[in-house]
Amino acid sequence: MNAESGDKSESCVVVNGVGLIGGSIAAALRARNPECRIIGMGRNPARLESARRAGLLDECISSTGGSTLPSDALFVLCLPVELIAPTAVAIASAVGKNAVITDAGSVKAVICRDVARDAAACSRFVGAHPVAGSEQTGFEHSSPDLFAGRWCFLTPEQAPHAAVERVSEFWSSLGCRMFELSADAHDRIVAATSHLPHAVAAMTTLCQDPESLRFAGTGFRDTTRVAAGDPGLWTQILLGNATHVQASLRVARSLMQELEHALEQRDAATIHRLLQTAAQIRRGLS
Amino acid sequence: MNAESGDKSESCVVVNGVGLIGGSIAAALRARNPECRIIGMGRNPARLESARRAGLLDECISSTGGSTLPSDALFVLCLPVELIAPTAVAIASAVGKNAVITDAGSVKAVICRDVARDAAACSRFVGAHPVAGSEQTGFEHSSPDLFAGRWCFLTPEQAPHAAVERVSEFWSSLGCRMFELSADAHDRIVAATSHLPHAVAAMTTLCQDPESLRFAGTGFRDTTRVAAGDPGLWTQILLGNATHVQASLRVARSLMQELEHALEQRDAATIHRLLQTAAQIRRGLS
Repeated sequence: MNAESGDKSESCVVVNGVGLIGGSIAAALRARNPECRIIGMGRNPARLESARRAGLLDECISSTGGSTLPSDALFVLCLPVELIAPTAVAIASAVGKNAVITDAGSVKAVICRDVARDAAACSRFVGAHPVAGSEQTGFEHSSPDLFAGRWCFLTPEQAPHAAVERVSEFWSSLGCRMFELSADAHDRIVAATSHLPHAVAAMTTLCQDPESLRFAGTGFRDTTRVAAGDPGLWTQILLGNATHVQASLRVARSLMQELEHALEQRDAATIHRLLQTAAQIRRGLS
Repeated sequence: MNAESGDKSESCVVVNGVGLIGGSIAAALRARNPECRIIGMGRNPARLESARRAGLLDECISSTGGSTLPSDALFVLCLPVELIAPTAVAIASAVGKNAVITDAGSVKAVICRDVARDAAACSRFVGAHPVAGSEQTGFEHSSPDLFAGRWCFLTPEQAPHAAVERVSEFWSSLGCRMFELSADAHDRIVAATSHLPHAVAAMTTLCQDPESLRFAGTGFRDTTRVAAGDPGLWTQILLGNATHVQASLRVARSLMQELEHALEQRDAATIHRLLQTAAQIRRGLS
């Protein structure tokens, strides 16, 4: 951030984890803030170097230690959720007071709780969750427009005002619409809108006889598309939001049981009411 | 069908119910068999006339009685499932021995069972289910390519061989890939691949707090898209396949409970195994 000129665009961004999300952040920065120096950070030097050669990065540094980190940069952690808090703590201990750290993790409460235990990290970390992604992985699938018009949740908790403003400016500059809320409120919302649909898509897929799947139409394909997502990442997401996801699953199961009971009773009125309410809600979604 | 010349293409097709499916059948016939006379049949003369003016039909006849039906035509019933068997019986009583009747209903056993009770209908009816559609309704959304490359189930039961062959030729001529099986085997397959996903999408939608829905991403939108479908049609589809759908819902609920239990126990290995198996199955779907 160039404070002297009043220009709010970042001059150096470190993207830690250059996969689909990290790669798309780099691509969006290239397109929207061409002056910005983009540093890729990761565990796999060969992959980082490929992303640099693809034009996404200016420089690569290893996340396994030994490199000097830019002192006042904005760090964006695009890592599996279980790695975000420890990485934020490690980075906070190695940078100047003007560095800020944000993330793109799909859960927020556990991350913010763990970060809050470390004073250096707590004063620099502003949790974020851009609602964008794909069942695809790898920077090869990244897009400069992945964030355009998408919501980005911001969960500042105890972060200083200036850091919150800087992180909000950053995500906005990639095209996001910002929404600030508590980490717990965030987790409750995404349990229903994202984690439940993922869990349900996976369980619906597991109900299938592989022999019959070739007959599946577009309905099945759409309904279960997200189930192709990375099992390792999603295990940690569901575990990181276990309480809210369990509650959502319980509600879904009880509604399915209500439908099952209505089918057993040949109770057309109840089935119709359930489907009609669902159709009204779904049609209301722009 | 022009038997004398050996040409297997139909010379006159009556489409009963000119909505998305019936309209797309007419559009596909226009594109692939331009010589065919297409007669629209329905309860709403104004809607039929609109479809005729849109170029989909050559002629309109009321399904509420009074019209003479073409004696040897192929009749395609694109109606809500509960109307298919009674309509097949009514048509069979009013046409010549060379007429055949097929349908596009999403369930088959109840329809074939009811048709089998009427000798005239039974000797002319060949149940079909093209796996194609959309959450949209009305002939305005019809497409000549809706059936191209899609599976079409054929459930001949006791239908005469010549009728089965003729109906199979007809659906093939619209671009479908044919698969013959018993009505019960059909209903078991679609309970899992189509009716369960619909039910689950609707119940997932019902779990949502309307206030939070604006934050829903593409995952939620894809997963629940089918829930916008017509509640009246889907009530009859689920009821028409109640036993198999109940069984599928029970399996899905039990898998969701297993996932819920694993979350409660923070059992990462079980969660990972469930998600990984689902991802493998889903990725295997071309």
